[in-house]
Amino acid sequence: MTGLRMRLTGRGTGNLADLLIRTATAADDAALWAMLEPVFRAGETYAIDQGISRRAALDWWRGGTHAAFVAQEDGEALGSYYICANQQGGGAHVCNCGFVTAGAAQGRGVARALLAHALDEARRRGFHAMQFNCVVATNTRAIGLWQAHGFEIVGRLPGAFRHPTEGLVDAFVMYQVL
Amino acid sequence: MTGLRMRLTGRGTGNLADLLIRTATAADDAALWAMLEPVFRAGETYAIDQGISRRAALDWWRGGTHAAFVAQEDGEALGSYYICANQQGGGAHVCNCGFVTAGAAQGRGVARALLAHALDEARRRGFHAMQFNCVVATNTRAIGLWQAHGFEIVGRLPGAFRHPTEGLVDAFVMYQVL
Repeated sequence: MTGLRMRLTGRGTGNLADLLIRTATAADDAALWAMLEPVFRAGETYAIDQGISRRAALDWWRGGTHAAFVAQEDGEALGSYYICANQQGGGAHVCNCGFVTAGAAQGRGVARALLAHALDEARRRGFHAMQFNCVVATNTRAIGLWQAHGFEIVGRLPGAFRHPTEGLVDAFVMYQVL
Repeated sequence: MTGLRMRLTGRGTGNLADLLIRTATAADDAALWAMLEPVFRAGETYAIDQGISRRAALDWWRGGTHAAFVAQEDGEALGSYYICANQQGGGAHVCNCGFVTAGAAQGRGVARALLAHALDEARRRGFHAMQFNCVVATNTRAIGLWQAHGFEIVGRLPGAFRHPTEGLVDAFVMYQVL
């Protein structure tokens, strides 16, 4: 199990005390689904079927080629991310990650802590870059966080995302050499 | 079975006579693998494991969410492409395609005919756009063909592809609204 206990300070960290980020296991499935379900059902930020089943969502998030991590405080899961190779073969040195924060933990710096962990984990695994393939343009909070931590918008996909209330919106490809 | 018999004329069509483009079936596996194996083994254009097995390659090319087509002339397969949704959920209206041309048929306009068929097929299936996610920058022949047929380079991924002889090269994201 990879664990990193971090004390967060500075702007945006709210009142987070010690945050433990560790590998996710089957024992986390209920907590993971509690975080993922509202995000996937909303359909605003992930290019995932809004009606995806619990099992399919968890199999995707922490199964197959994905490794998933959980951020917890006092035993409570506040967020999670997965990491995987974004392509195979000649593209396998670029990784992809997905992030989720528990609704009740928004604004406390969890996403920032997860991103920092993910960037370290990506380097530890020997990846040369991290890529986000379909960042919905309306997801300005995430985009701002990622830009503040070294990501650049390297591509714009016109109308590539059908937002449930905004209609067709652009999506960005974001990229950071590690 | 979707079939389109086309007579190709003009620059780059070589001596192609009638070309039939139709749905690929299991009966095409030997011909498909004969085209795909050298391309995947070379590792220069697809982000696919160079050592991929015949079964895994065929399962990917014409299985799962992919629909595959074969271009044939006098019963001989000269090329193939697949089409699939590039993302799920809010991204499911953008498709992705992959193309291969038999080595002996290079330069005869097969790729151009496949692309024209694919664009029609994508519209027929209701897709709003076509996206290529990882176009290796050294694959200038394909890039030129796609640009000549409406695709734009909408993103550049620095060093995102490890070319077997050129080392780390950029990859492009290419996109066309249909």
